[in-house]
Amino acid sequence: MNKAATNKEVRINNQKNIVNTLFRYGPMTKQELASRLGLSLPTVSVINKSLAAKGLVAKGEKLESTGGRPPSHITLVFDARLSVGVDISTHHVRIVLVNLGPTIVSSQKHFLSYDGTTEYWRSVRKLIDSFLADNQVDETKLLGIGFSVQAPIRSGQPVSASFQPVSLSSIDQNVMSKIFGSPVEVHNDAKMASLAQVWGAGEEDDVVYLMLSNGVGGAIIADHKLLRGTSKNAEFGHMIVQDGGRLCNCGQHGCLGAYCSSRALQEHSGASLDEFFAGLDAGNDQYRELWDEYLHMLAIAVSNLYLIFDTDIIIGGEM
Amino acid sequence: MNKAATNKEVRINNQKNIVNTLFRYGPMTKQELASRLGLSLPTVSVINKSLAAKGLVAKGEKLESTGGRPPSHITLVFDARLSVGVDISTHHVRIVLVNLGPTIVSSQKHFLSYDGTTEYWRSVRKLIDSFLADNQVDETKLLGIGFSVQAPIRSGQPVSASFQPVSLSSIDQNVMSKIFGSPVEVHNDAKMASLAQVWGAGEEDDVVYLMLSNGVGGAIIADHKLLRGTSKNAEFGHMIVQDGGRLCNCGQHGCLGAYCSSRALQEHSGASLDEFFAGLDAGNDQYRELWDEYLHMLAIAVSNLYLIFDTDIIIGGEM
Repeated sequence: MNKAATNKEVRINNQKNIVNTLFRYGPMTKQELASRLGLSLPTVSVINKSLAAKGLVAKGEKLESTGGRPPSHITLVFDARLSVGVDISTHHVRIVLVNLGPTIVSSQKHFLSYDGTTEYWRSVRKLIDSFLADNQVDETKLLGIGFSVQAPIRSGQPVSASFQPVSLSSIDQNVMSKIFGSPVEVHNDAKMASLAQVWGAGEEDDVVYLMLSNGVGGAIIADHKLLRGTSKNAEFGHMIVQDGGRLCNCGQHGCLGAYCSSRALQEHSGASLDEFFAGLDAGNDQYRELWDEYLHMLAIAVSNLYLIFDTDIIIGGEM
Repeated sequence: MNKAATNKEVRINNQKNIVNTLFRYGPMTKQELASRLGLSLPTVSVINKSLAAKGLVAKGEKLESTGGRPPSHITLVFDARLSVGVDISTHHVRIVLVNLGPTIVSSQKHFLSYDGTTEYWRSVRKLIDSFLADNQVDETKLLGIGFSVQAPIRSGQPVSASFQPVSLSSIDQNVMSKIFGSPVEVHNDAKMASLAQVWGAGEEDDVVYLMLSNGVGGAIIADHKLLRGTSKNAEFGHMIVQDGGRLCNCGQHGCLGAYCSSRALQEHSGASLDEFFAGLDAGNDQYRELWDEYLHMLAIAVSNLYLIFDTDIIIGGEM
């Protein structure tokens, strides 16, 4: 092993840890950072200087002296770096610009039907370019582009997903790298929504996120991180909640997604979502039955997830 | 903040990390430890010396030189410390002596009916004392006593568990501390069985452990650790696998434990387990139906757990 390489790794690792700690716990003194990370004070000072030179950290609030020179907080400079987030859905592309806060600085939504062709991804690239130009983004501040899609993803790579709305088997990572340049990340939409919830909204460290939309998705956050990265877990939509129940498009019977999805509501009522909820309010018995069933299956799923994880369960998504 | 205290914390933290890393990944060189833990080589050398002075680590295999002095592996000395593990069940007390391997050095099983009285715990203490004397254990090597019980435990503290075979509401931590001295740890039996499986048998880092015994228990291991310590999660026995199904002793209908437990098999067949399996082999139709139901519900549970975690699922326990 090469010693120089090792020391460089150590330094990069320490830099990452300090940035992550400030992100997660907010401003703190060098002494607090040293204690939390098991580093010596001189090590923290050196890393702090190099992070400050990159504009990533700055001196924050001055604290009261406990004897010597009054310490001050080190804070993360949120606007020092920006990232682009792109949500790919069947008919829309949503683009957001996020700082290190993470706060959404700007966002746009475009109508664009997904078809998985190279041409489609070129159009997405154009939308992003004009979005960045509109926002006068300094490209040297840009960290990369993250895509979220409605499909299971393992370690950033799409996996077979024939029963998913967006068929990612047709996403060619080489094509994407060529069109967007690196670094590009592709992740599951429910996993990303859950991280946004937990990191952005200051939720608990341990949370189960159940996404109820057109389909059902989910994520498990343990100790502020996605359980095992962005792997193909939390496939809550295909948990069986009704043994021998409704046929799901995955081929099983009685999956949660066959009941608790706007797709299922529309399919079984033969109505649009707006019509469905209007009819429900107007006392339509068939709709009432479907809705009661939706809520009943949801209750089973939430109860089971609670027994498994013993954490808060966040229900998100859009109807 | 006191600087001296901080430095001591850093040192203790580094010692712990080195011991844990050697435990988890096996013998490695100082250079490898430094790289993995993000520490400098001099720091690792200092800590290594102090651990060696305590008899916790030793020089292992000498490796080939890559230019300079040939490096050698640092290994954990398994027998440097011992712990006592005690499994409390309704009618038995099992006592084991474990080294840092972790390997069971010696074990004993005693008939003793649990009743939760101070007298009961005094008897357990006597059994442990004579077990330690039989094994001529040097008490300075003893780290502590760990108890495993059939009940949900949160952070080492028993929680209300009225539907569990061992009613832990009657365990008084103050009484236990007085009888056994500190440190004493009390944890859930399924959680401990799963850790033994993963740490001892070298299983994967991510695993779901489903314990099928008299009742149903379980544990979730993520990144080689119990998910959120020893908290009240993985209550797989009360997941609903049959909506509106059999009444469980928890008050719900259709819990996994109402089907997949030897208690349920005995209750519904009216036979002992030996009689049940003998009858099953002999072609008893009612037993066949019960057993098919057991396997069917188990299949639903395993399928759901697999969708949630996407990891190996270990089924353990004893009938």
